[in-house]
Amino acid sequence: MSKLAVNIAMSLDGYVAGPDQSVNDPLGVGGMELHAWFHPLKEFREMHGEQGGETDASSAVVNERNENVGATIMGRKMFGGDAGPWGEDPWPGWWGQEPPFHHPVFVITHHAREPLQMNGGTTFHFVTDGIEPALAQARDAARGQDVRLAGGASVVNEYLAAGLVDELDLSIVPLVMGGGERLFAGLVPGDLKLTQLRAIEAPGVTHIKYRIR
Amino acid sequence: MSKLAVNIAMSLDGYVAGPDQSVNDPLGVGGMELHAWFHPLKEFREMHGEQGGETDASSAVVNERNENVGATIMGRKMFGGDAGPWGEDPWPGWWGQEPPFHHPVFVITHHAREPLQMNGGTTFHFVTDGIEPALAQARDAARGQDVRLAGGASVVNEYLAAGLVDELDLSIVPLVMGGGERLFAGLVPGDLKLTQLRAIEAPGVTHIKYRIR
Repeated sequence: MSKLAVNIAMSLDGYVAGPDQSVNDPLGVGGMELHAWFHPLKEFREMHGEQGGETDASSAVVNERNENVGATIMGRKMFGGDAGPWGEDPWPGWWGQEPPFHHPVFVITHHAREPLQMNGGTTFHFVTDGIEPALAQARDAARGQDVRLAGGASVVNEYLAAGLVDELDLSIVPLVMGGGERLFAGLVPGDLKLTQLRAIEAPGVTHIKYRIR
Repeated sequence: MSKLAVNIAMSLDGYVAGPDQSVNDPLGVGGMELHAWFHPLKEFREMHGEQGGETDASSAVVNERNENVGATIMGRKMFGGDAGPWGEDPWPGWWGQEPPFHHPVFVITHHAREPLQMNGGTTFHFVTDGIEPALAQARDAARGQDVRLAGGASVVNEYLAAGLVDELDLSIVPLVMGGGERLFAGLVPGDLKLTQLRAIEAPGVTHIKYRIR
C-alpha cells in the first residue's frame, strides 16, 4: 500500500513553527529560519518556478522526498486559513496561482468549500470529516503513489497519535526557538515505535529518517 | 582556553530523562532506552570494568568525547542526591566504588560536604556557590584539558542560558518519551547561536555536534 510520509523541519527544542503565527507570518516568529538550509537550493527555486540556486547534500534528500508522491494532506492554517486578508473570494490560500504541489492537495478544515483548481496541476480539496477520511481520499487520488503529510504540527501530531504515519523524515536545524508549535506534543511513549532508517549530514541541517511501526 | 562540552542523549521530543525519576530509577521511566545504543558497546563495558562488547559507528564518537577531558561537572541528582537509600555515611552516590570518570568531578549542590575520593582517580567535589564557581574550579582541576558537563537537564540548561557551553554533542535517539526532563527548557532564541559541526549516523542513534557562539 502507498505510504503516508511526513517531512518536516524541526528546531533542536522540538518546534516546527515559531510563536505568534499569523497571515503575515505563517511560520511564526523565527520560523523562516527552520528552512534556511532549503531556500538557497536549486530544488527549492525550481519548485517556485525560479532559476539558479545551489546543490548540496540536502538536494538528494529533497529529491527523494518528492519522488513518487501522488497527493498531499495539510491543515487549514498551512493552506492559509479560511479567508485571506485581501478580500479575494474564493480565497486561494497563500501558495500563489501555481502552487508547488502539482497534484491533489487535501486540506483538513471545518469550513466546507468547493474544490479549488490552481495552475500547474494542483487542486485543493477541503475535507471536513477528519483525518481518516482525508487520508482515504488522498490515497485514492494518489493512485498507488505515496501520500505526503505536509503539516502543520497539530495535524501531524493527530496522524502520529492515530498510528497512521509510515515514515517520518526530520530535518533537524541548529536552532533553539523557545516557543511555537511542537512536534510530538501530546504523544505518549506507546504511541510510536520508531526505527532509524538513515541520517544525512548537510550544510546547516541533518536529515534523519524513521520508519514507524 | 579549555572547552566546556556537553554530550547528552535526547529523545526526538526533547527529553534527556524520563518522568518520575527516583533513586531506584535515576533516569526516570523509559530513560534507560535513551542509552540503548551505548550499552552494547565495548567502550561502555570498558568504562565499567567489563570485557567484551561491540564496536560500531558510535564507538569513534564515544572515544572522541572522552579525549582530552580533565574534569567533569554534574548536578546533585546525577551524583545520586544528598543521601542514599541504604544508610551509607558518607553516601558515595550511585556510581559505585570505582566511578567511570577517573578525574575530578564537581557536583553542584546546596549541601556542603567534604571531597570524596573514590577508586580509580575520581574525586567528587561538592560546590555550593553555583555554576560559575563550579566551572572555574573544574577548569583549574582540568589543567588545560577540557571540562565535560555531564548533566542533568536542569544544570545543562543553566549553563546554556548563561552562555558558558562551547560544544554540544547530541545523541538523537528514535524515541518519543512524552514527558520527563527537557533539554533547552526555559531558553529563548537569543540565548544560543549554534553551528552544526558534524553528524554521524550510527545504529539506533544519530550524533550531531554543534559549536555554540
